[in-house]
Amino acid sequence: MKKLINGIDMVLGESLGGLSVAHADILHVDEAFRFVRRREIVPGKVALVSGGGSGHEPLHAGFVGRGMLDAACPGQVFTSPTPDQIAAAVEAVGGAAGTLLIVKNYEGDLMNFEMAAEIVAGPVTTIIVDDDVAVESSAHSTGRRGVAGTLVVERIVGAAAEEGRGLAALATLGRSINGRTRSMGVALSSCTVPAAGRPTFTLAADEMEMGVGIHGEPGRRRVPLASADAIAAELMGAILGDLAPPAGTPCLLVVNGFGGTPLMELYVMANSAARLLTGRGLPVARCLVGSFVTSLEMAGASLTVTALDDEAMALWDAPVRTAALRWGC
Amino acid sequence: MKKLINGIDMVLGESLGGLSVAHADILHVDEAFRFVRRREIVPGKVALVSGGGSGHEPLHAGFVGRGMLDAACPGQVFTSPTPDQIAAAVEAVGGAAGTLLIVKNYEGDLMNFEMAAEIVAGPVTTIIVDDDVAVESSAHSTGRRGVAGTLVVERIVGAAAEEGRGLAALATLGRSINGRTRSMGVALSSCTVPAAGRPTFTLAADEMEMGVGIHGEPGRRRVPLASADAIAAELMGAILGDLAPPAGTPCLLVVNGFGGTPLMELYVMANSAARLLTGRGLPVARCLVGSFVTSLEMAGASLTVTALDDEAMALWDAPVRTAALRWGC
Repeated sequence: MKKLINGIDMVLGESLGGLSVAHADILHVDEAFRFVRRREIVPGKVALVSGGGSGHEPLHAGFVGRGMLDAACPGQVFTSPTPDQIAAAVEAVGGAAGTLLIVKNYEGDLMNFEMAAEIVAGPVTTIIVDDDVAVESSAHSTGRRGVAGTLVVERIVGAAAEEGRGLAALATLGRSINGRTRSMGVALSSCTVPAAGRPTFTLAADEMEMGVGIHGEPGRRRVPLASADAIAAELMGAILGDLAPPAGTPCLLVVNGFGGTPLMELYVMANSAARLLTGRGLPVARCLVGSFVTSLEMAGASLTVTALDDEAMALWDAPVRTAALRWGC
Repeated sequence: MKKLINGIDMVLGESLGGLSVAHADILHVDEAFRFVRRREIVPGKVALVSGGGSGHEPLHAGFVGRGMLDAACPGQVFTSPTPDQIAAAVEAVGGAAGTLLIVKNYEGDLMNFEMAAEIVAGPVTTIIVDDDVAVESSAHSTGRRGVAGTLVVERIVGAAAEEGRGLAALATLGRSINGRTRSMGVALSSCTVPAAGRPTFTLAADEMEMGVGIHGEPGRRRVPLASADAIAAELMGAILGDLAPPAGTPCLLVVNGFGGTPLMELYVMANSAARLLTGRGLPVARCLVGSFVTSLEMAGASLTVTALDDEAMALWDAPVRTAALRWGC
């Protein structure tokens, strides 16, 4: 295992230490590493809290800040944060306006966020993100997995929370954005979880895992390596087949790297994916390309499409100031 | 070779196609792929033009936009752009105020930018970036190589150009920033150039290349894999030994991934590097962490330190709006 680390037990704390050094103007890291919170709490605003296993950076801590999350709880690598962590985060940032928990659809996350919601004071509502069309259920989830669409939900609901909307309205909006978002990914290599010390799975030199999950979980099937155009066509076919947006719907396209794929290849994928969308009469109204919801150093990428409307587009464009996404301020 | 591409000859054009789709609000890609230019030309401003081989994305095209470059010329992977490309870029964005060429210190780049400077009309000045302390000369350079410090020069000089400063003053500033900037990197794996089809070099499972270049050129020596703290200590020792900033100097720390290293590890390195700086009485006044000057999918990272002053800090903080760096607007 070749990694830039000091020891398996120190990875999480030291990476949060680095995050704190680099972004002290945006966020504050709890001393016990239970959560990362926005530096300045906005009184009266509904708090947005998310989290999950680490290893998907910049998700979620890199999305803490103005116009996105108020706090994120990092578990150990690919391990859910504990209910205590989540409760501490809610207590640190939540107020009378309430807290919206944004949870990716994995059984461990659901259970721990649920337990946290039961022990904290004040109103709490949970929304679940399940945008991955690859498989209907998996080793880690009942129903579809939550993947890169999570950042779309966090961004758009985060912008709406900044406007002062109430808890119920934000939950409705978040569920609506999740309902209009679909993703699917492909892996060209496995990642290695530090505590495991060896690759999660193995692929032959000419194989890829179509529909892979962000923990290296199996997807639909293992197939021979194909061209960017062919891969984009399969991913986009599955996404649009399920989402079925009417022609003319303005779309947000996210081309997300899993950690080990260079930006040059992600832009090749963006080129292929955008051509497929416009070929179906779907304008690419917004596009985000980069490694945002990763699986450590896994090579591969996912596509995400969100069917936008004027409101969602305006919220996407609103100012955001986080470690990983920043514009307008 | 496992890559998300359609064919070796199409990588560059299709990745620029994706860049164009994703960032049409910021930049414009020349139809013949000779250059990427800022969407809106600012009359009367000195134009900043850079470029070099592709494969280092987001450098340089990802740094085109307000507060940074006016144009970037992408060569084929790890291959200098041609004089014709560079001349076309200068003609597209340069005006009576003149053009500043920002060139990384590699022989091919120097020669081609020099030839371009001779054939274009209007005043042109060249500054050379040579921040890599790893080796005094290399297979590709006479004198030190230009690496991640390039983005620091492009950012700070770009902000100054936006203020309306003249060509001579910008060249002086750029040389000063280069003179206050040092970098060094380490590779844990090689990358594979698409046209070569196999890794540029090979490392054993427990080896790393200390002082590696951004094309996989050899560094100082091949050593056993070490901890993040030990790696940071060697890199920072070489950087600070050469830069020798007086205690109390506010520093910019850039922790740059080479493309295949996850963000989590880069933040671990940031944590180690920041501790070393503060331990020497050098405050980390600004910090940038991410994969900005890459070597395709190479695993590894580099550290860059720039000794700041009030002016450089204010210019670093000024609004920038590019595909890869964006804040304040």
